[in-house]
Amino acid sequence: MPHTLLDTKALEDVLKKFADARDWQQFHSPKNLAMALTGEVGELVEIFQWRTEEESWLVAQAPETAQHVRQELADVALYLIRLASVLKVDLNAAIQDKLVINAKKYPPL
Amino acid sequence: MPHTLLDTKALEDVLKKFADARDWQQFHSPKNLAMALTGEVGELVEIFQWRTEEESWLVAQAPETAQHVRQELADVALYLIRLASVLKVDLNAAIQDKLVINAKKYPPL
Amino acid sequence: MPHTLLDTKALEDVLKKFADARDWQQFHSPKNLAMALTGEVGELVEIFQWRTEEESWLVAQAPETAQHVRQELADVALYLIRLASVLKVDLNAAIQDKLVINAKKYPPL
Amino acid sequence: MPHTLLDTKALEDVLKKFADARDWQQFHSPKNLAMALTGEVGELVEIFQWRTEEESWLVAQAPETAQHVRQELADVALYLIRLASVLKVDLNAAIQDKLVINAKKYPPL
Repeated sequence: MPHTLLDTKALEDVLKKFADARDWQQFHSPKNLAMALTGEVGELVEIFQWRTEEESWLVAQAPETAQHVRQELADVALYLIRLASVLKVDLNAAIQDKLVINAKKYPPL
Repeated sequence: MPHTLLDTKALEDVLKKFADARDWQQFHSPKNLAMALTGEVGELVEIFQWRTEEESWLVAQAPETAQHVRQELADVALYLIRLASVLKVDLNAAIQDKLVINAKKYPPL
Repeated sequence: MPHTLLDTKALEDVLKKFADARDWQQFHSPKNLAMALTGEVGELVEIFQWRTEEESWLVAQAPETAQHVRQELADVALYLIRLASVLKVDLNAAIQDKLVINAKKYPPL
Repeated sequence: MPHTLLDTKALEDVLKKFADARDWQQFHSPKNLAMALTGEVGELVEIFQWRTEEESWLVAQAPETAQHVRQELADVALYLIRLASVLKVDLNAAIQDKLVINAKKYPPL
């Protein structure tokens, strides 16, 4: 595995500056960010809820959902990276460790 | 803003190989992955639910939660990146576009 | 404990008729309803995400959130009851059994 | 429509006594209960995530999931009723109002 699977540094910096410039640090506790992440995942799931699995493959191409799904995926990513950042969790290292655990738990066929 | 805020390519490749080696493509429809993402966010939120905002700052340091929160953050990241990947959404581009929208919607102070 | 803690019969009937009258049975698989439940919980959580615990006590009284929180609580209830209904789960019995389990797991002080 | 679609009074009383007997009022802020609700919905969704819509009809009958899904449905119900209760929201009235709104928004065929 490469040393870095997901480099979040640049985005963490942008998000910190974005929050600082709006005086949002007071709202960005880990507890609150975990809730915000939940809310965004809820909005993402709503795109899929009445679609079949087969239809779900098309949501990023279909004109009526393409922009929406991109925006909701982005929102989830933004809150996830921000949450890891305020918790001072190295998300890349956490991912690497979890992949090792998963590979042991679910051996390849 | 730098051209790349979040480079997901290396992780997308690892996750694709991981799924292929276990014959998991059949399960990894966007609809199913959105549900799996929900489940993992639920597990992450459970860490915070009975903690105050103040206590929530400590979960990544406190010995009884440090590993757990790292693992749940990783799980959320893994399903998010995998979902964007199977949808063929360029998550970096989606993030950049969403940040522009957010900056207009919430001007700095 | 009284024999019936939560009588869902009347609401189940109303929801079934509501779905039938709109030809929604085709969408109301348990999988889809579980997703819809998630989406509604996400909307409910959004009301609380930037509020402190103390502020959260006031959301059902504060004019800017009172109607919203009532509607989201209702939406969550509607999908939960509908999901239990299509699964033919007796929610009252399930609740009674779970309360016995919880009482054993968490003895009173 | 009958006057009462969902009578939550008996369950609210049981849940209040349950919390009081364990000194849990300190944890049961609306914000925290909304998070706990999220966590339980996440556990419920996990039952469905890798199952097809067709398979999802069977989870309450299949021996490997029947008890699990009943328990998770109960957990979601318990936190939902408790949340409405601490917010002093009349869930039955909220449901009746929401059904009127829904009927206008989605007229029958």
